[in-house]
Amino acid sequence: MKLVQFYQPGQGTGVGVVQGDTILDLSENNPDIETVNDLIQIAGTVRMSISELVDRMMNDQDEAVTEYAYDILDTVPDIAVPHLTLPIFAPEVWGFGVTYKRSAQIRDEDAQNTIYDQVYTSPRPEAFFKATPSRCSGPNAPIGVRSDSTLTATEPELAYVLGEEGEIIGYTLCNDVSAWDLEKENPLYLNQSKIYFGCCSFGPTLVTADSIDDPYNLDISCQIIRGETTIFEGQTNTSQLARTFEELNEYLYRDNPIPPGTLVSTGTGIMVPNELSLMDGDIVVISCPEIGTLSNPVMQL
Amino acid sequence: MKLVQFYQPGQGTGVGVVQGDTILDLSENNPDIETVNDLIQIAGTVRMSISELVDRMMNDQDEAVTEYAYDILDTVPDIAVPHLTLPIFAPEVWGFGVTYKRSAQIRDEDAQNTIYDQVYTSPRPEAFFKATPSRCSGPNAPIGVRSDSTLTATEPELAYVLGEEGEIIGYTLCNDVSAWDLEKENPLYLNQSKIYFGCCSFGPTLVTADSIDDPYNLDISCQIIRGETTIFEGQTNTSQLARTFEELNEYLYRDNPIPPGTLVSTGTGIMVPNELSLMDGDIVVISCPEIGTLSNPVMQL
Amino acid sequence: MKLVQFYQPGQGTGVGVVQGDTILDLSENNPDIETVNDLIQIAGTVRMSISELVDRMMNDQDEAVTEYAYDILDTVPDIAVPHLTLPIFAPEVWGFGVTYKRSAQIRDEDAQNTIYDQVYTSPRPEAFFKATPSRCSGPNAPIGVRSDSTLTATEPELAYVLGEEGEIIGYTLCNDVSAWDLEKENPLYLNQSKIYFGCCSFGPTLVTADSIDDPYNLDISCQIIRGETTIFEGQTNTSQLARTFEELNEYLYRDNPIPPGTLVSTGTGIMVPNELSLMDGDIVVISCPEIGTLSNPVMQL
Amino acid sequence: MKLVQFYQPGQGTGVGVVQGDTILDLSENNPDIETVNDLIQIAGTVRMSISELVDRMMNDQDEAVTEYAYDILDTVPDIAVPHLTLPIFAPEVWGFGVTYKRSAQIRDEDAQNTIYDQVYTSPRPEAFFKATPSRCSGPNAPIGVRSDSTLTATEPELAYVLGEEGEIIGYTLCNDVSAWDLEKENPLYLNQSKIYFGCCSFGPTLVTADSIDDPYNLDISCQIIRGETTIFEGQTNTSQLARTFEELNEYLYRDNPIPPGTLVSTGTGIMVPNELSLMDGDIVVISCPEIGTLSNPVMQL
Repeated sequence: MKLVQFYQPGQGTGVGVVQGDTILDLSENNPDIETVNDLIQIAGTVRMSISELVDRMMNDQDEAVTEYAYDILDTVPDIAVPHLTLPIFAPEVWGFGVTYKRSAQIRDEDAQNTIYDQVYTSPRPEAFFKATPSRCSGPNAPIGVRSDSTLTATEPELAYVLGEEGEIIGYTLCNDVSAWDLEKENPLYLNQSKIYFGCCSFGPTLVTADSIDDPYNLDISCQIIRGETTIFEGQTNTSQLARTFEELNEYLYRDNPIPPGTLVSTGTGIMVPNELSLMDGDIVVISCPEIGTLSNPVMQL
Repeated sequence: MKLVQFYQPGQGTGVGVVQGDTILDLSENNPDIETVNDLIQIAGTVRMSISELVDRMMNDQDEAVTEYAYDILDTVPDIAVPHLTLPIFAPEVWGFGVTYKRSAQIRDEDAQNTIYDQVYTSPRPEAFFKATPSRCSGPNAPIGVRSDSTLTATEPELAYVLGEEGEIIGYTLCNDVSAWDLEKENPLYLNQSKIYFGCCSFGPTLVTADSIDDPYNLDISCQIIRGETTIFEGQTNTSQLARTFEELNEYLYRDNPIPPGTLVSTGTGIMVPNELSLMDGDIVVISCPEIGTLSNPVMQL
Repeated sequence: MKLVQFYQPGQGTGVGVVQGDTILDLSENNPDIETVNDLIQIAGTVRMSISELVDRMMNDQDEAVTEYAYDILDTVPDIAVPHLTLPIFAPEVWGFGVTYKRSAQIRDEDAQNTIYDQVYTSPRPEAFFKATPSRCSGPNAPIGVRSDSTLTATEPELAYVLGEEGEIIGYTLCNDVSAWDLEKENPLYLNQSKIYFGCCSFGPTLVTADSIDDPYNLDISCQIIRGETTIFEGQTNTSQLARTFEELNEYLYRDNPIPPGTLVSTGTGIMVPNELSLMDGDIVVISCPEIGTLSNPVMQL
Repeated sequence: MKLVQFYQPGQGTGVGVVQGDTILDLSENNPDIETVNDLIQIAGTVRMSISELVDRMMNDQDEAVTEYAYDILDTVPDIAVPHLTLPIFAPEVWGFGVTYKRSAQIRDEDAQNTIYDQVYTSPRPEAFFKATPSRCSGPNAPIGVRSDSTLTATEPELAYVLGEEGEIIGYTLCNDVSAWDLEKENPLYLNQSKIYFGCCSFGPTLVTADSIDDPYNLDISCQIIRGETTIFEGQTNTSQLARTFEELNEYLYRDNPIPPGTLVSTGTGIMVPNELSLMDGDIVVISCPEIGTLSNPVMQL
């Protein structure tokens, strides 16, 4: 099952179920369900999976439900028209770094940075606090380049959402935008590199865990478009991940009260060359066949 | 003006005004004021300082107000009795590191870590995400030692609270408890060292900015008590800070949407020797004459 | 299934399931369920009855659940101890009048009041707005006698709670306390007779509709105790009702947006003689074997 | 000072200050002020009048504020465009009846109804529960005619809003729409006559008490327009009121917990002839020079 959240003029946020090219408005007949967070909470209370819960709600609709063409909602956010938003209001976003083999290799080429190699080979992964809702952008909303950064990189990643019991309830795509020059200057600047306005986009859908056959075999691709030109294309497959999600969660939850609905971005396997730092007006497109296409314009802050 | 928040059985959180050894219940006649956060919000709306606002409310009390002896409220949290809580529900806590001369020197003695020296001499300070409310402890509530840390240090610090316009509205004391061994193993483990359950205590009071003559001339002392013995005593003065708060804020707010009520801990000038890692049952006491005494027991997680 | 709401020091309201002499704390393992209103909302969303929903939650408890002896919770409200509260936070309470044969007869004896006879024989029942939550009292909490009334009567009634689709989801007992002298002076004073502080108590339990074999065959009894003496005893059976609940609902919902969780009190079949006007310190006890015993002291306002 | 509430696409409700033909958006620079209810609450907390509070907020605007032409906002509610809403979200609306001399006389002509005369001459006024927010309509929103009423009358009235201390904080116009045939059939049907969907409109502005020189000398007029024709015109002046507001409040608050922000409609001095029962499509226009013009279409339910 593929879920989205969307904004409707005069009604605010609603939950949609993606069926082919169409989005069904789940909130219309279920006014208490305004967000995917509401679904997670209720699913936990009634001991159902999200899919079971939504199926039950859709099979017993009292009335016909509004359908939107997916492409109509997949548009630049504007209060005058319905549009996709973040697929869940994640209270916290955490990221992991150096989780792909290629990622460690490239970073290793940088002078002085044996710390990445150490993390790559250590039992303990690099976990970092990435974002809060006010710093995140949904589909087609701008991601940011800090005013004091000259080397900001896109990091296209598979991300998962955690439920009330710490279980993975679904998957989405995340762009862990990072001011690489700050982190390179000094690893103690990690949070300044990672946490700022527009530092994180995710979406477009949340695919429930039971709809992903193998989360370790997902193709992820990324394009950066500047003006009329595609200046970068890259791809990876989550089979290249050197860590399991169980491993990541084991460290994430260790003595750490993670709220339900938290998004975890699993690290990037696509390294954009340093000379392609994001610039104002670029469009970054991240795709996964099972999840969809997340597109965000770049805004110089 | 010195404010506290406190819990009252059957009523939840209320705001108190400290006058000498006494705490006056401000919420009793002002049921819309349940938290210091409410005061900040309303002060912003009516364009008053917190002090002006509270003065106005207290000068026009309709009825006599309950008074508590400070010592009665300064007790171990228990739902059956009134007690102090965090002096504000800070939506985010940020920390700064290597802001005192002595701090940089000591860290420098550690092998391999010139990164601290670099930060100390660089224009850009080390800013890190420290905590959210669910990870913070108020007066007399336990602070934590991670189950996977063998060297967890107390870091006693002056902290300030930010208002709706980014102004400093008041000061408190903060214990930036840190799993030093994790950060030493690899600086990419910074957030795991800093963010976990019970990683941060602050309080006991929030002293409004207009009541602190010179925030750069405050004595801060710290004691660690193990069993019957004081195993550590240290002190510093904020005159030893190598950064101004304006400088810290300049970096903190740069392209970063900081919510009102955020707590900023300004770095420690008291370095506890590594051999005195916190242990279960220790009591950490941090004091500043202008702010009061923050005492927390240590809990092994 | 028999539900209660109860207050717990430091935790606020929770939902309990009555099993024999014991109350199981349903909220303990289900922190999102704080009220019976929450249950109604979620039951509507997942298309289950309240009983199904609660059964599902109880069969899949992760951990053992606290049990209270019913008698321990059935006590005078005090913030220091756990105690029963209203069994649901009904956003509105509506009442119906002259629904029992005997009620019409007695009122008929009063001079000038043929309006009661007219209502009794008319297709349209008397429906009146009775109370909001701030005017209602739960078990053992005081009911009021207006300062300007010299003839305030207890009206013991069966009441039902309405769900999101207008269905009856459960039953409880209601004391529709009424300043009879005001209404007798002029029927236009009806709302002043009916709506004031402490004008309505209900509880102690909410018995789900599927646990009541025949709501038109319930024994209801009432006692008024003054000092050591029972000064009044009366009883009726809901078989004496001259209206069906479908009939009452048909008029209640006619062009009228009734919020879910609304309580409907169905009129009294027990008429207390006028010379037994409630007095400060009286205890009014209303019982129904299927629902329990609702006891309230009387407070002169 | 004249206040309105208005809806803005994508932003929800905001507060506006009417200055001549213009409405200034007070919420734009004061995001914590979304409703007039918020103003009432904060004014109570800081011990200011609403006018003082708003003046203070407007004199210290950080940035220029959006202005709307009043006529642009005074339009049929549509989620696509900004428009006026109820001028306050009154948690309860109470009405008073038979408060004008003429009102008593006319009712007296009806057969059997000496109860109106009795109320008129009695110390105790007729107070009735009139509406909750879900039953109220703002400017240009439809008022209702019950499906079972054939004689529904408009009752144009001056109304006031109550503050946290029971003081009158401002005035507006109210249309106490009433299914007169139900009340005439039996006074026990009073609440069915008065309380239903669309039974009450009020607005368009809330004029603060300090801006009304003499609330007992206000001209109120009413027109009913059917198709192209004005089928009714009437006027009165509040000098014809036979009760003071202090008197009404004295009875309203007697042992009755009235929530702040409650609207009190003071009874009608304009009696529409019975043969002019409201019909679907009629427009009812109520005006007072100091308050503005409240216009509502009629909808047959």
